[in-house]
Amino acid sequence: MGTLKAKDLIITPATILKEKPDPNSVGFGTVFTDHMLTIEWSSEFGWEKPHIKPFQNLSLHPASSALHYAVELFEGMKAFRDVDNKIRLFRPHLNMDRMHRSALRATLPGFDKEELMECILQLVKLDQEWVPYSTSASLYIRPTLIGTEPSLGVKKPTKAMIFVILSPVGSYFSKETLNPVSLWTNPKFVRAWKGGTGDCKMGGNYGSSLFAQCEAVENGCQQVLWLHGEDNQITEVGTMNLFLYWINEDGEEELATPPLDGIILPGVTRQSILDLARKWGEFKVSERYLTMGDLTTALEQNRVKEMFGSGTACIVCPVSDILYKGETLHIPSVENGTKLATRILDKLTDIQRPSDENSCTGGGGSLSPACSQSGSPQGWEVTQPSGEGDAPITPLLLPLPQRKTRPAGQSPSKACLCLGLALGLGQPTSKACLRLRLALGSWGAEGINEISSAALAVALPGCPPPNPPQTRPVSVGSRAACILRITSLWAFKRFGSFSFSFRVTQSFVFLW
Amino acid sequence: MGTLKAKDLIITPATILKEKPDPNSVGFGTVFTDHMLTIEWSSEFGWEKPHIKPFQNLSLHPASSALHYAVELFEGMKAFRDVDNKIRLFRPHLNMDRMHRSALRATLPGFDKEELMECILQLVKLDQEWVPYSTSASLYIRPTLIGTEPSLGVKKPTKAMIFVILSPVGSYFSKETLNPVSLWTNPKFVRAWKGGTGDCKMGGNYGSSLFAQCEAVENGCQQVLWLHGEDNQITEVGTMNLFLYWINEDGEEELATPPLDGIILPGVTRQSILDLARKWGEFKVSERYLTMGDLTTALEQNRVKEMFGSGTACIVCPVSDILYKGETLHIPSVENGTKLATRILDKLTDIQRPSDENSCTGGGGSLSPACSQSGSPQGWEVTQPSGEGDAPITPLLLPLPQRKTRPAGQSPSKACLCLGLALGLGQPTSKACLRLRLALGSWGAEGINEISSAALAVALPGCPPPNPPQTRPVSVGSRAACILRITSLWAFKRFGSFSFSFRVTQSFVFLW
Repeated sequence: MGTLKAKDLIITPATILKEKPDPNSVGFGTVFTDHMLTIEWSSEFGWEKPHIKPFQNLSLHPASSALHYAVELFEGMKAFRDVDNKIRLFRPHLNMDRMHRSALRATLPGFDKEELMECILQLVKLDQEWVPYSTSASLYIRPTLIGTEPSLGVKKPTKAMIFVILSPVGSYFSKETLNPVSLWTNPKFVRAWKGGTGDCKMGGNYGSSLFAQCEAVENGCQQVLWLHGEDNQITEVGTMNLFLYWINEDGEEELATPPLDGIILPGVTRQSILDLARKWGEFKVSERYLTMGDLTTALEQNRVKEMFGSGTACIVCPVSDILYKGETLHIPSVENGTKLATRILDKLTDIQRPSDENSCTGGGGSLSPACSQSGSPQGWEVTQPSGEGDAPITPLLLPLPQRKTRPAGQSPSKACLCLGLALGLGQPTSKACLRLRLALGSWGAEGINEISSAALAVALPGCPPPNPPQTRPVSVGSRAACILRITSLWAFKRFGSFSFSFRVTQSFVFLW
Repeated sequence: MGTLKAKDLIITPATILKEKPDPNSVGFGTVFTDHMLTIEWSSEFGWEKPHIKPFQNLSLHPASSALHYAVELFEGMKAFRDVDNKIRLFRPHLNMDRMHRSALRATLPGFDKEELMECILQLVKLDQEWVPYSTSASLYIRPTLIGTEPSLGVKKPTKAMIFVILSPVGSYFSKETLNPVSLWTNPKFVRAWKGGTGDCKMGGNYGSSLFAQCEAVENGCQQVLWLHGEDNQITEVGTMNLFLYWINEDGEEELATPPLDGIILPGVTRQSILDLARKWGEFKVSERYLTMGDLTTALEQNRVKEMFGSGTACIVCPVSDILYKGETLHIPSVENGTKLATRILDKLTDIQRPSDENSCTGGGGSLSPACSQSGSPQGWEVTQPSGEGDAPITPLLLPLPQRKTRPAGQSPSKACLCLGLALGLGQPTSKACLRLRLALGSWGAEGINEISSAALAVALPGCPPPNPPQTRPVSVGSRAACILRITSLWAFKRFGSFSFSFRVTQSFVFLW
């Protein structure tokens, strides 16, 4: 029986590359990159070799169980290009974990999560120029697992396929992420129920929600607020988890979201918000039931501060109004400055795509997640969980893309220094080395003209010397925009039995 | 905007025809015929021209909403070959109605139900030799409607496709249809809930059920009994509706099935059983709630006669045991001779595929459903709804296939007379004519040797004369079996403002 192995990957590059869209005008999930990943499975032979090939239509038997019985599931995550041109995925292990849980619930085959993630990274690597050079756009990654059983009996499929497609995306809702949304709610539409599949990312949860979404729009609202039970529990909003930031019944300042009781999708962003807010320790953070009655009472008593949805597409999305039983309940999220939503958005954005001084400045010795980087054996910079509870959010880095050389005859007009940082961890439990990469570039009114980089390796006490430093070229990309900044960084982290720290006093970085 | 029109049908015949399977050994939905029907839709252009083409894989954009969000629905119905070699569909209008309801619930496009049915009939006509020459096998018809929106936003699709595939099928569960099944039940798995889509034939209802089905098999049972609510209401079994035939709490003999309250699929077979049993008027027929408590009490008091599932695949399927809370409840369906289930099976089989005197013998002037036949403008024999409540079950006839001539030098050994009946309705609201088709054949120990047929047209009062009668040849088919019967027929039907009746005193029919 074949198992899913990234080393078996077969790559068939596209011969014709598509034009990349303007990251500022691209919508959500309408444009796809040059390549896709497919991995077929059968109960007879197990997983076949993964295949990265030109983006193309799928050829499916018309009896495929995904098309008749929704034997299917998906995931959604994003790759972000940061200010020093690194590409990060945000907590992809959580998506792999959830995808595996969904697969078991759907009676679809299990798989090695690390190997699948490695295949996805190879796909993103191949299409890395599609990761927008933009602070607001990103590359959406859509892993999908479908049943391809070619017969009509309602049964566990004997054939299946993973496919992964990539799409450069702007903001899900609008260009201004923090534009609030209005919600429509009607207890006659129920998204999920106990004993069902609402806690898995299975297709059936979504198709069944569209009718209510259309009703919401017809009623002048943007999204559905999903209720549950006779007491009209608040569960989710649209395709997002939901948070209420309020003074609760006991007079406590509280950030609350419904508990994972089987009808709530365990969102990665939801978990990250809980992790962050609990780390802040500034107010009560609860996974608890919230009913429409709780909400209306709190609104009457002026105890509601903010309400927002959370998801990979939007990160956070404030709520302004709820149309409930013919009346509009106004939520004062905007009046209260969407302070908490904005703080969460800024923090998570910083982690996904470090862009200012706060992002990598540790305080009190704790690790700022964006600085947690280590190298996997394959040369990928993959974050290892710290195991110390100090890095709840673990991004993952892709290597820098290829250099674009300066056009012949053109001279640098202005120079800047880019000092990239990477912690290379050869053997996560025993060896570590510190690498500083020095990148030199020139920048002027006409854009980036030339860049070169060199790596400087420093052996840490108790560690063998690192591999010889390698100069890695840096790409300018096709759409250059440029900024120049100075950042002071300080990071601190424990690795097994020893710890080290480093400090960079000055860094010139640029974004395009 | 294009509308779905059968007259626009483009037919691309297959150049290579597949070998047909043995109808006695074919499973459920594993073998498909030579052709399929596809009809594409977009919000921009509406329905495109229907296309019948060789059975082939679908080429789908990898972002198609059916593959990610289960924007999809299906129907299931059967075509039966009867003893006089006619091909019938069983109440297909009910499937078209339900398909249309499912489409609206899934935010998929609506369509003209009659036109779609006509397209399906053309498909069945083209592949009519795939309708098994068998009294137990049939041709399963699987209309499917999927969202093909090629983008990842969770929204009402702007593209969609109907496709219809055909599969010769044996019995769903086993060769002995009335083999009872054992059920496993666990309240922790819930099939459908109020506010969801359990009353529509949407894919999501089925994929989410597979895990429980696997659990049932692991627990030594065959199907899942789906419960609902804190009182453990009995709702459905596997992918079937459920009937309990018992002495109820008030001492009444009752056939009960759960009501269509939103969590029950409105099965065509379910409705037909209710129609039949109400027409019989021999016991109480109820759509009512039934709980596990009701059932266990009734079992203790020896009040349960039979329990059975119902569906297109199996018609009826008796239940022998229910594994509930670690205990096996024995249902005495078999001990009671599965009398009611057998009676229903025989009656519905007779209607689908008339094979004995009961099938076409009307009583008291009411219409015997199997005799309700009329010709559509295209020459198809399509049943018109009676509108008078006297024909609750309305089959549909396909024209007879092509003649097979007698081998040269072989003489008829025994003659029989086949008198086919067809009511031709030229203009459904204003004109009608009666056609009698006279078919003469020879039959002997070696099988059918020769058949010829002639049509005799009779103008009804107030109607223009029918088109000249046409002799239609009759096919023997590749798998000939033969019986000889005498049937007395009496039919009565109203069409708009006038009515007519006819009587056939003697009919010789044959089966192959």
